[in-house]
Amino acid sequence: MADTAVRSSIPAQSKRTPAGGAPTAAHTAEEASESCIDIEAVTDLLLGTWADTRREAREMIKDPAFWRPDGMPMAEHRERVLGQLHLLVEHGASLRAMPKEYGGLEDNGANLAGFQELVLADPSLQIKSGVQWGLFGSAVLQLGTKKHHDKWLPGIVDMSIPGAFAMTETGHGSDVAAIGTTATYDPDTEEFVIHTPFRGAWKDYLGNAAVHGKAATVFAQLITGGVNYGVHCFYVPIRDDEGAFLDGVGGEDDGVKGGLNGIDNGRLHFTHVRVPRENLLNRYGDVAADGSYTSDISSPGRRFFTMLGALVQGRVSLDGAATTGTALALYIATTYANQRRQFDSGAGTDEVTLLDYGKHQRRLLPLIAQNYAQFFSHDELLRKFDGVFSGKKDTPEEREDLETLAAALKPLSTWNALDTIQEAREACGGSGFLAENRMVGLHQDLDVYVTFEGDNNVLLQLVGKRLLSDYASQFKGADAAKLAKYAVEHTAGKIFHGAGLRQLGQSVADFGSTARSVELGLRADQQHELLAGRVEQMVADVAGALRPASKLSASEAAAVFNAHQAQLIEAARAHGELLQWEAFSDGIATITDAGTAQVLTWLRDLFGLHLIEKHLAWYLINGRLSAQRAAAVTRYIDRLCARLRPHAQDLVDAYGFEPEHVRAPIASGAEQARQDEARAYYENLAASGEAPVSEKSLKKK
Amino acid sequence: MADTAVRSSIPAQSKRTPAGGAPTAAHTAEEASESCIDIEAVTDLLLGTWADTRREAREMIKDPAFWRPDGMPMAEHRERVLGQLHLLVEHGASLRAMPKEYGGLEDNGANLAGFQELVLADPSLQIKSGVQWGLFGSAVLQLGTKKHHDKWLPGIVDMSIPGAFAMTETGHGSDVAAIGTTATYDPDTEEFVIHTPFRGAWKDYLGNAAVHGKAATVFAQLITGGVNYGVHCFYVPIRDDEGAFLDGVGGEDDGVKGGLNGIDNGRLHFTHVRVPRENLLNRYGDVAADGSYTSDISSPGRRFFTMLGALVQGRVSLDGAATTGTALALYIATTYANQRRQFDSGAGTDEVTLLDYGKHQRRLLPLIAQNYAQFFSHDELLRKFDGVFSGKKDTPEEREDLETLAAALKPLSTWNALDTIQEAREACGGSGFLAENRMVGLHQDLDVYVTFEGDNNVLLQLVGKRLLSDYASQFKGADAAKLAKYAVEHTAGKIFHGAGLRQLGQSVADFGSTARSVELGLRADQQHELLAGRVEQMVADVAGALRPASKLSASEAAAVFNAHQAQLIEAARAHGELLQWEAFSDGIATITDAGTAQVLTWLRDLFGLHLIEKHLAWYLINGRLSAQRAAAVTRYIDRLCARLRPHAQDLVDAYGFEPEHVRAPIASGAEQARQDEARAYYENLAASGEAPVSEKSLKKK
Repeated sequence: MADTAVRSSIPAQSKRTPAGGAPTAAHTAEEASESCIDIEAVTDLLLGTWADTRREAREMIKDPAFWRPDGMPMAEHRERVLGQLHLLVEHGASLRAMPKEYGGLEDNGANLAGFQELVLADPSLQIKSGVQWGLFGSAVLQLGTKKHHDKWLPGIVDMSIPGAFAMTETGHGSDVAAIGTTATYDPDTEEFVIHTPFRGAWKDYLGNAAVHGKAATVFAQLITGGVNYGVHCFYVPIRDDEGAFLDGVGGEDDGVKGGLNGIDNGRLHFTHVRVPRENLLNRYGDVAADGSYTSDISSPGRRFFTMLGALVQGRVSLDGAATTGTALALYIATTYANQRRQFDSGAGTDEVTLLDYGKHQRRLLPLIAQNYAQFFSHDELLRKFDGVFSGKKDTPEEREDLETLAAALKPLSTWNALDTIQEAREACGGSGFLAENRMVGLHQDLDVYVTFEGDNNVLLQLVGKRLLSDYASQFKGADAAKLAKYAVEHTAGKIFHGAGLRQLGQSVADFGSTARSVELGLRADQQHELLAGRVEQMVADVAGALRPASKLSASEAAAVFNAHQAQLIEAARAHGELLQWEAFSDGIATITDAGTAQVLTWLRDLFGLHLIEKHLAWYLINGRLSAQRAAAVTRYIDRLCARLRPHAQDLVDAYGFEPEHVRAPIASGAEQARQDEARAYYENLAASGEAPVSEKSLKKK
Repeated sequence: MADTAVRSSIPAQSKRTPAGGAPTAAHTAEEASESCIDIEAVTDLLLGTWADTRREAREMIKDPAFWRPDGMPMAEHRERVLGQLHLLVEHGASLRAMPKEYGGLEDNGANLAGFQELVLADPSLQIKSGVQWGLFGSAVLQLGTKKHHDKWLPGIVDMSIPGAFAMTETGHGSDVAAIGTTATYDPDTEEFVIHTPFRGAWKDYLGNAAVHGKAATVFAQLITGGVNYGVHCFYVPIRDDEGAFLDGVGGEDDGVKGGLNGIDNGRLHFTHVRVPRENLLNRYGDVAADGSYTSDISSPGRRFFTMLGALVQGRVSLDGAATTGTALALYIATTYANQRRQFDSGAGTDEVTLLDYGKHQRRLLPLIAQNYAQFFSHDELLRKFDGVFSGKKDTPEEREDLETLAAALKPLSTWNALDTIQEAREACGGSGFLAENRMVGLHQDLDVYVTFEGDNNVLLQLVGKRLLSDYASQFKGADAAKLAKYAVEHTAGKIFHGAGLRQLGQSVADFGSTARSVELGLRADQQHELLAGRVEQMVADVAGALRPASKLSASEAAAVFNAHQAQLIEAARAHGELLQWEAFSDGIATITDAGTAQVLTWLRDLFGLHLIEKHLAWYLINGRLSAQRAAAVTRYIDRLCARLRPHAQDLVDAYGFEPEHVRAPIASGAEQARQDEARAYYENLAASGEAPVSEKSLKKK
């Protein structure tokens, strides 16, 4: 767990508060409203390392030509988005990641940062760009060699060759190693024969496959000389210039989807389709004219994962796009909640602004905190991605860390996107259900992010396995003392009601009873200790539970693993949450403005406590929080919500969206204008002396 | 809390198990598979009191003319659904609730039971029917008197008068009492002048308003003689036979929505539109020719709530439709999970069926349990509704209970629908995102159910207030001993770490350490005790927290209430969950077949433990579960999932859906056929001796 729990130091936020050693947070509404954030500085912080590219992309998509149309029939929407890709080419947006010899900038981080912003225009545009340049193009670039680059990259970049990324099959989604499509080498003609042996091996859910694709990068089992060398990627032309399938190629349209209907997803199948030997994208494995196979990576397993790892950028960019899309929904719902009034408070005053309701604060503010955490963790992911793909830090360890980090963060941010967008839409009531207010469209489009580019649960299981192997490696060659220490600590943790209850009694004694003092046990370093300790113990618990499996038969061992699958996935999720929390804290450490640091520290605390509250039962069962401290978590969240409420608009304004990005009438100020008009009407009516009296007041007389 | 915790007896399920006094559940997979359900009997049970009407409706919608079209442009979809309403008229489906003198059956329960099933055909059809007959028609029927019935009911029933239910305004959704539209009586002409004084008072989100409506039941502040008598309902013609707005009426189209695009939602506004005095729907309040106002209900507040209460059927039917829609998604995902295979287990065997994965069982089985609970609780709600509206049990208390029950159940079932449909769609991966597999469409259409006919949070707050007033009434005239007993019990509960920890220590001592014995503490009566005890204590806690408010100023009291709003809503939710659990248990008590009773008891236990697990932190903090028993909850759920796994298909088959209701290719057996074809291919290949060897096996040599 190198990148998890072993953090040498926690940023000591309290040092950056105005009052030096003062407590983390102010304690009255007045104190709270004294601090405020430097909105522009926070925007810079959120936009991160490639802020300039993001701004450039946001400027470009102010053009309505890029905007998602509501209710447009699928066929038209597909053509519209195809046209937008050509517009992107005109803007040079397809060149950022390309090698310089093909006119590119070789700037991988900027490339993803720019593309992610397209989610604000139309997620179909973001994903179709991703299909063309991030998947199809990247397969040629990353899995191919110079001859392939020379031949196809220019056409891929300028959209003269729209292409599909033909990996997934109807019968195999996440389990790519098991795909059925074969590519059998024929030394007589020096060709590969691409073939779909049964219906389940049809390529499926491929963007650009239903209509626009002229070629595809097809993943297939490479067979030569009677040996299956596993999954490799082949460049296969599929349509002629008139859009008709080439001989032996067939397909189907996937039809209407839950969202992203600007993309022509479809199915492809191949009946003994012959491509030249050179069409094998041969960076990691090659077949000579005589059919002999060679690869620099001798282990078939490692070769497979290296090829797949070269395509990690899809996951990285989904993490970023989900984060930005979530921010948009939060901007809309928070702005509306700051203007919309509903019900008087019973105190005879004006109707209450939605965001002044305790429940409404509880609904939205922790989600803003979570979204901020995602911005910071995404920037870390993007920097790691850039380090590897620029070659600046391209080691096997860095690649493995990058893949683990992407596999940990993408599930969290994409699920959070759906939950948050849904909460935002519900927080806007009926208005939230209108397409014009954006949130339903965002939910529909981002829905599939949780199952594509790696199903979220499958990705988390990968992370879990990595955590287990890191955990096991701690004990390689460990001496008896170390193992004994482990046994004592972790057995106690696992049985939990011996040491657990004692710890619990202790912590009850540790803290007094005032509201203020309970916060002392939930500051930054305690938050970290709780979050990191949970990951450590969960991994240790699963590892302990799986240990007997090594002595069992394969099927019994599989059953033991299966019984702990949900637990392992939960451990991986905890790991991802910890990474987000750490990234948020590291981000705050860079802030120099005292007010900004103060407010964002409250927000980070809200994020930390929101996570702890979510898993409160675990902390209690495992004796890591006393009942008293656990109860304080919820109260502290309520206090933080009240403190942050005056800053809510600033926090969402700091996303830096302009009206052309928001486009939701309810977040345009129209609601405020309607409120003002209604208030003026009643005031004038009262002043006129012609207002009807209420029946109630009449009865009192 | 008359209908909550004070339950005289818990059905003793164990008496109905084959072995008499045997434990609740079998303990090995073999034992588990011995019991099995009588599918047809369970279908009868789930279809409930009006099973015949439901079957009739399901038979009718086998006609593809009723089915939801995917990707149809909004305008066409609207016309299609309008046509479907005419088809319903032809089938006599609009008559069930109508008075006999207008050709109806006066069967309110059957009416809702039948309409709810339309969700399987197209939720737009269900909701547009609800607008026409459940809202617009019901307003005339329930709020009007004979002259209105004679004049308009026949046209409403036969769809010659499509109408809008004009209650909600852009500026006021849930707070109907505060709407801005006015109806001012003019004694000179004996007319009401319907007027929209400002933009926020436009009627909004009204089905049938954008295109099809010819009239509307308009809610407005009734003003006569300079006095505002509060919100009343008026029948207002809005369009001529050519579809043009009448003088003074205007409107806008709400445009594309997140779903339900077969309904023409829109906005209406009125500029001094005059309607005859008789157009006041005057069942609960009337204006004489001279302008004098009379009502049988003298309290303006009670009159308002009586009028709104007359329209409770919308909430009742949403509870039912959400339950049926959820069942459809579970049927599809479970059927697919029983056929689809992905990844081999590592044991060298065949690929594993999705539903054999521990995580997948955890994802789907508790949701099936929850859905079953909803079927049972919905039938109770429907019976109560029928009792009140048939006049058989129409007392103010029954009406109030009905409204509280509907307000408690509708939020839970509609939120559960969205969560479950989303989980079901994700459990099907990319296939789940295709419109043809139904789940994305269901999610999109049912999305708005959580905020219309009463925003879920607002409804739960109403329930919470009812719980508080029932709670307070317990102490009216209570003697000192009763109050003292309360103080001891509830103060202890609230402070929780005195008595709480003692209780906790005790429960640790009570139970041994074997896996089997921990279940002893989580049987039916303990589940009930935990669920009911939580409601009681949460209500008592909020009541205690609010007590000081009676001594505060109005604005301070409002602040105190606001600080506990989220807590009160949570208490109301707990109340609803308890009602669902009780209904499920009562439903099982009627089962005579031993195998069915056994399996459904496991399922009920899974539901109960799923609820307890969701709130586990609360039980721990409040000393109601020891850490050991709390940890047992999760393990017990795992065991129940394993026990129920062999019955999963039976349980969803018992929903009784036929292929015309399901229509999802992935639940049609196509996946099984593809699996079989692939397996046969590999077997034949192996038999032929021409299968390539794997590189891995080659390396071993």
